[in-house]
Amino acid sequence: MSHPLYKKVHALSRGAALLNSVQSLLDWDQETYMPKEAIEMRSEQAEMLAHLVHRARTSKAFAKALSTLIDLETGEIGDDRLTPSQVAAAREWRRDYIRSVKLPSAFVKKYAKTTSTASHIWKTAKEHNDFKSFAPHLEKVVQLSRKKADILGFKEHPYDALLDLYEPEMTTAYLTPLFTELKLPLTQLLKEIMSRSAVREDFLFRHCPKWKQVDFSHLLLRKMGFHAHSSRLDLSGHPFCSGLGPKDTRMTTRINPDDVLSNIGAVLHEGGHGLYHMGLKPELFGSPLGEQSSLGIDESQSRWWETLIGQSLPFWTHFFPLLQKEFPEAFGDISLETFYQGVNRVKPGLIRIDADEVTYNLHILIRFEIEKGLIEGTYKVKDIPDLWNEKMREDLGVSPSHDGEGCLQDIHWSLGYIGYFPTYTLGNLNAAQFFTAFEKTHTDWREQVARGSLDFIRDWLRENIHQHGREYTPQELCQRITRSPLSAAPYITYLQEKYAAIYKTKP
Amino acid sequence: MSHPLYKKVHALSRGAALLNSVQSLLDWDQETYMPKEAIEMRSEQAEMLAHLVHRARTSKAFAKALSTLIDLETGEIGDDRLTPSQVAAAREWRRDYIRSVKLPSAFVKKYAKTTSTASHIWKTAKEHNDFKSFAPHLEKVVQLSRKKADILGFKEHPYDALLDLYEPEMTTAYLTPLFTELKLPLTQLLKEIMSRSAVREDFLFRHCPKWKQVDFSHLLLRKMGFHAHSSRLDLSGHPFCSGLGPKDTRMTTRINPDDVLSNIGAVLHEGGHGLYHMGLKPELFGSPLGEQSSLGIDESQSRWWETLIGQSLPFWTHFFPLLQKEFPEAFGDISLETFYQGVNRVKPGLIRIDADEVTYNLHILIRFEIEKGLIEGTYKVKDIPDLWNEKMREDLGVSPSHDGEGCLQDIHWSLGYIGYFPTYTLGNLNAAQFFTAFEKTHTDWREQVARGSLDFIRDWLRENIHQHGREYTPQELCQRITRSPLSAAPYITYLQEKYAAIYKTKP
Repeated sequence: MSHPLYKKVHALSRGAALLNSVQSLLDWDQETYMPKEAIEMRSEQAEMLAHLVHRARTSKAFAKALSTLIDLETGEIGDDRLTPSQVAAAREWRRDYIRSVKLPSAFVKKYAKTTSTASHIWKTAKEHNDFKSFAPHLEKVVQLSRKKADILGFKEHPYDALLDLYEPEMTTAYLTPLFTELKLPLTQLLKEIMSRSAVREDFLFRHCPKWKQVDFSHLLLRKMGFHAHSSRLDLSGHPFCSGLGPKDTRMTTRINPDDVLSNIGAVLHEGGHGLYHMGLKPELFGSPLGEQSSLGIDESQSRWWETLIGQSLPFWTHFFPLLQKEFPEAFGDISLETFYQGVNRVKPGLIRIDADEVTYNLHILIRFEIEKGLIEGTYKVKDIPDLWNEKMREDLGVSPSHDGEGCLQDIHWSLGYIGYFPTYTLGNLNAAQFFTAFEKTHTDWREQVARGSLDFIRDWLRENIHQHGREYTPQELCQRITRSPLSAAPYITYLQEKYAAIYKTKP
Repeated sequence: MSHPLYKKVHALSRGAALLNSVQSLLDWDQETYMPKEAIEMRSEQAEMLAHLVHRARTSKAFAKALSTLIDLETGEIGDDRLTPSQVAAAREWRRDYIRSVKLPSAFVKKYAKTTSTASHIWKTAKEHNDFKSFAPHLEKVVQLSRKKADILGFKEHPYDALLDLYEPEMTTAYLTPLFTELKLPLTQLLKEIMSRSAVREDFLFRHCPKWKQVDFSHLLLRKMGFHAHSSRLDLSGHPFCSGLGPKDTRMTTRINPDDVLSNIGAVLHEGGHGLYHMGLKPELFGSPLGEQSSLGIDESQSRWWETLIGQSLPFWTHFFPLLQKEFPEAFGDISLETFYQGVNRVKPGLIRIDADEVTYNLHILIRFEIEKGLIEGTYKVKDIPDLWNEKMREDLGVSPSHDGEGCLQDIHWSLGYIGYFPTYTLGNLNAAQFFTAFEKTHTDWREQVARGSLDFIRDWLRENIHQHGREYTPQELCQRITRSPLSAAPYITYLQEKYAAIYKTKP
């Protein structure tokens, strides 16, 4: 790592990353403690920081330094003394650099302005179930996204250029059969579960005081391996995790006194993102090797803790008695088995973020099909509500009574996040596939977790995933860990076995 | 205000101010919520922001734009279409610009490094009452401060150059007789009070639960005119107020369950700074007209609320029943008169920040005499402990048993803040003198405050002080409001009258 040219690139890149982390602090503050009326000036500060970060990442000095490591045109490595990790870093720096310089700043500004307006309009449209007022703005976002795809370039499908922004090297050609492979077994499993008796869930909504929920959240995070000297948990409108830098991981949750599970789920989810951030090597901060591999891999970490661990029987074997102790009035009369079944109840609903493990990905697939169609031009914006409602009926058997709980429910499209939704499902699939490898080396994980031990899980994730940063592409990482390319099979098997025990369906 | 050249200067200056406000957020976060171990990266971020702010404030583009308004060499106004406010802004921009470019960046770096080390060493030296280990570092700080004065330039006394950094246009020649005029009556009043019976104070240290203190603090701030949508109160090691921008005023306090008055004093003090910040005109943000006039004027606002109002009988006539209601166990058996006397107890002590209104400025005068002597070379660093202890004995009649509660108690000198201490006393003098003008137009202020009304006070301060920013120098502001130059007389009169009623001394 003592390569002087490499050091130069890392130092310049680190400067940009420092500025970027300041911007992350602005965002964190805005969502947690900033007084409401300060928003106008905060926007100006954020715009200024974004400009400074962009300038640092596209500076001539950086390009010149980087081109001593890698040919910016061809991607050919220019120095054979680089270690394999350094070669990977150079490849990723080049990926980021090319992307940053490709988009003209006039386009970036127009895009930012259009999506800022669209997301503003979306908010009101959602409240008033008024898709028509949103449609012309979404139309503009779609047009600009198609243009963005053209500018960024793609080999086969314009949607690939957008996907690549969130999941490097993922393609429509890979995703389409993968999602098809997933859909049929999911809908079959759902059908079977629906034919069985429902499990009890009434007790899940009993009152649990806010401050006690905060205490329990801290207990969970401590158990996961967080320390107060290098992390925080705060409250915000929507839970999120912000990695402000090595030794500064900030998570948030949202607390509803009548829905303790929603808080617990959020804490485990954001904690999963947080552990990924804490597992990056501090000395690699500012280089691609000190960043998360992709949104899909990042989501695999949050879903790992939220669902594979946090909705498992061993987990609640240890934690349910603690929960009962903290909230005796809510759970004193409930058995572990009843609680576990309630946590894992399956119930097709209209809202993605409330969905269970079986139906969640069906929500994502609908969004994927629609946004892919919008980008390739087979679907029109005006047809979205009908498409949405039809697909919801077909795949989930539910019908939105208005667009507010239908196609207007998510903010993503208004912000121009087209190509983002698939990473949620990629997260679930990666997590389940990683888990098969984890289980092989930790055959006794159930016993350990039931005794309240979680450290060995974090260590495995750090060893196999976290510490590598972006050294491997998401696809390479999956292959490396599981010796197979990503597939839907492990996730399907996981669900079938788990729900066979809960709903007495066929395993 | 539609002057295009002026607008250009303001826009450039506003950019620097935006970056500076980001730096203030970094500081605020560091003192409130930042996880401890994040300090290393936070220092790097702060250094980077400081560099960007400095670069923006000394850019050629800014100098060129500013020189269209004012001759940077002579200070002559170059455009007769400027309004008087704009002329004042140009004068202040020039003052800041000249100061920023005078100090070579190598000197600034050396100074920052020396004071960073010195303040680090100071902390340990204070804990171990070990002046000797601190002395060589303070010696370096003094040498660099003398050099700083030489670089910045002065007409009569090198200390003037340092004073001017905190209190524009203040001079040693002005300060010396002013402080002499203050000292004799103060020591006489103190002597008289000491000859009278002490007032009760035992009840002041009764237990008041932390969260109830937080509630009471919010009540005080609401009464002063703060709203949650544009301000905050948090906890930190040392109370402070940070104006992050229009509509974002953040104050902190420190809560000791056994000393509720220390929290109340801190809240009123920081609230006073906060109201000044909130009273600046938002549209002037980024120009000198949108900044506080000086440290001394800023301190006049904090001390106004903390002492002139917050330790007055009318104030407690309204608030003591509320305090009793919140803390019945602590104050249920105490009368308003006893409480008021306790709040205003006079007791010479060793520690400046715990001092009462009568002795506080005596602490400051000792520091002023010593630091002036250090800068002019009449005192040596090694002699500080003896000088300190002798002056404490003479002026306050108390003797530190070690340097930790003597000359090592304040962080200021280690940070290179030489010339800063006098602004504390200037704050008290300005506040008392402003108050004479306030009383003339609000002869019924006692009745209004006793009824719980404080808005009219805030309005008067905003009208006469806050809204003007740096349009007037501190001296001009005092003359404008009170029709007299700053003097010690109003403060002395105020103390004599107030304490005559409490201690039955001669009014």
